[in-house]
Amino acid sequence: MGGDRAPDEIVAGALEAATDGIEVILFGPAGFETGGLKLVETTELIGMHEKPAEAVRAKPGSSLVAAHRAVADGRADAVVSAGNTGAMLAAGLLHLRRLPGVLRPAIAVPIPTRTGPSVLLDAGANADARPEHLLQFAHMGAIFAEEILDLARPDVRLLSIGEEPEKGNRLTLEAHALLAASELGFAGNAESHDLLAGAADVVVCDGFTGNIALKLLEGTIKTVLDSMRAEIAATRRGKLGGLLIRPAARRLRTRLDPDTYGGAYLLGLRGLSVIAHGNSSSRAIANAIRLAARGVEHDVPGHLASRLPVTSRTGAGQSPAPARTS
Amino acid sequence: MGGDRAPDEIVAGALEAATDGIEVILFGPAGFETGGLKLVETTELIGMHEKPAEAVRAKPGSSLVAAHRAVADGRADAVVSAGNTGAMLAAGLLHLRRLPGVLRPAIAVPIPTRTGPSVLLDAGANADARPEHLLQFAHMGAIFAEEILDLARPDVRLLSIGEEPEKGNRLTLEAHALLAASELGFAGNAESHDLLAGAADVVVCDGFTGNIALKLLEGTIKTVLDSMRAEIAATRRGKLGGLLIRPAARRLRTRLDPDTYGGAYLLGLRGLSVIAHGNSSSRAIANAIRLAARGVEHDVPGHLASRLPVTSRTGAGQSPAPARTS
Repeated sequence: MGGDRAPDEIVAGALEAATDGIEVILFGPAGFETGGLKLVETTELIGMHEKPAEAVRAKPGSSLVAAHRAVADGRADAVVSAGNTGAMLAAGLLHLRRLPGVLRPAIAVPIPTRTGPSVLLDAGANADARPEHLLQFAHMGAIFAEEILDLARPDVRLLSIGEEPEKGNRLTLEAHALLAASELGFAGNAESHDLLAGAADVVVCDGFTGNIALKLLEGTIKTVLDSMRAEIAATRRGKLGGLLIRPAARRLRTRLDPDTYGGAYLLGLRGLSVIAHGNSSSRAIANAIRLAARGVEHDVPGHLASRLPVTSRTGAGQSPAPARTS
Repeated sequence: MGGDRAPDEIVAGALEAATDGIEVILFGPAGFETGGLKLVETTELIGMHEKPAEAVRAKPGSSLVAAHRAVADGRADAVVSAGNTGAMLAAGLLHLRRLPGVLRPAIAVPIPTRTGPSVLLDAGANADARPEHLLQFAHMGAIFAEEILDLARPDVRLLSIGEEPEKGNRLTLEAHALLAASELGFAGNAESHDLLAGAADVVVCDGFTGNIALKLLEGTIKTVLDSMRAEIAATRRGKLGGLLIRPAARRLRTRLDPDTYGGAYLLGLRGLSVIAHGNSSSRAIANAIRLAARGVEHDVPGHLASRLPVTSRTGAGQSPAPARTS
């Protein structure tokens, strides 16, 4: 029931993903048309603008909460929703719970850069973060890059306002020191102008900065492509040229389209949670479900649980956290 | 002597601006070819990667410091440089000094949005800022928008991660409250995906966020246009279409080009300082000089001195600061 285009695009995307052999369970009201997919009947829904923590507590019968409970109880392997991001985070914390040793879950967003996929985190779970959180985001991002993006020995960069270690704000200066002292393949600061060009396999930042960066990236791509289309359509000569470059423009749009990955992982929980764009098309939903299935196959929560170093406040203790099943 | 393309592009830009009747004085080594413009001989220069405050103190004979001293002494009305941004800020603070009541100077960058010009500040002078700084940036930005961008009654928005007042980090939540209680035309939070589409006349943020946003905007525009060019060139049909849309693409590039404005104001000092892009072309330098001249004609420091409300730590005291000439 989540997202701006529910339920039609959600169901269509679920049906598309189901053709890959993924068993998709839908959560929604009784009598809901699922095209043959299994339906778990729910009685409430959480709107896009409801206050997350309150809504999750007040509406245990909502589709969003019921889907989380299914994962927590082992009746499903992952939850996917295009609904309220804050509610996804709140339901994840409440019903899936954090992995042992995880300070804060983070939203990890795959970005289709010019040189291949990379992952940006945190893209908005933590508007305020501390240096040790950023260090842990980096570890989680590296595991995500290896397991989901198939990148061996990923390089990690810290998003800041200059490549030199002394450029940044208080948060990034301290995080830089922690990252430099870690076992990660830390390659220093990344500047934002290289984000789409392929700055690093893993780009780490606090959730405020990451959310600003991600939305700016998406908005700017859209505005530039829309402006180009308008300029081309302004003259007869341009229109003819526009017809000829249409396949090229379509290739570019597809490559830069956020729907290509379809969703973001909420990393650091005992179960898998994938958050799709609010305005997801059926294609985006199908891709988000595939992204979730890939996380299940690669047991991302298991890898996080067994490989994530315990982060103390000083970043000194680096012993592995005990592996636990959710 | 500042910037990646000094001195050739700087001199060419200065000569171009001089044809508009602007009296341009160059600062550089003896024997320097100025094409007939007045030269003030200097003996040192500050490199792009020198530590700003140290370099400004250690090199009083540098072109960057000498140009600032000329403004401080009344021998020039404004200083323009494509050099080390941090050194521009340090020299401004040391030699031009802050206007009375100004807590922190801010870098104000004009952005060519789809709906017209807007200004983003702070774009990097203060990596860490407090809520009362953001309130003052908003006031300075509004005066800039009126005087330099010709926008009557500019609307001001706070860059954050959601339009709702409760979305943001600790800094923006507190700044939101101060802005909402101010006399400004505050229109709430802006999300970064609307920055290029024209979110507001004045967009306010801390210098870390603003620098990330600005470089991401510029880098993404460049990467999208470069990717488009590469896709078009990949096929024969695309190449033909590319020839036909060339005028449209050129119009778009020109409109989105940061060189259109050429530079950013350092607002809040007793003199005018314009910081041009490090890789400024002669066109960018000419536009930066014109931007500086416009600031002189409109007496931006005078307007700031007379119209800027005094900002106390709580944002309560709103009496005007005494006007002072520099």
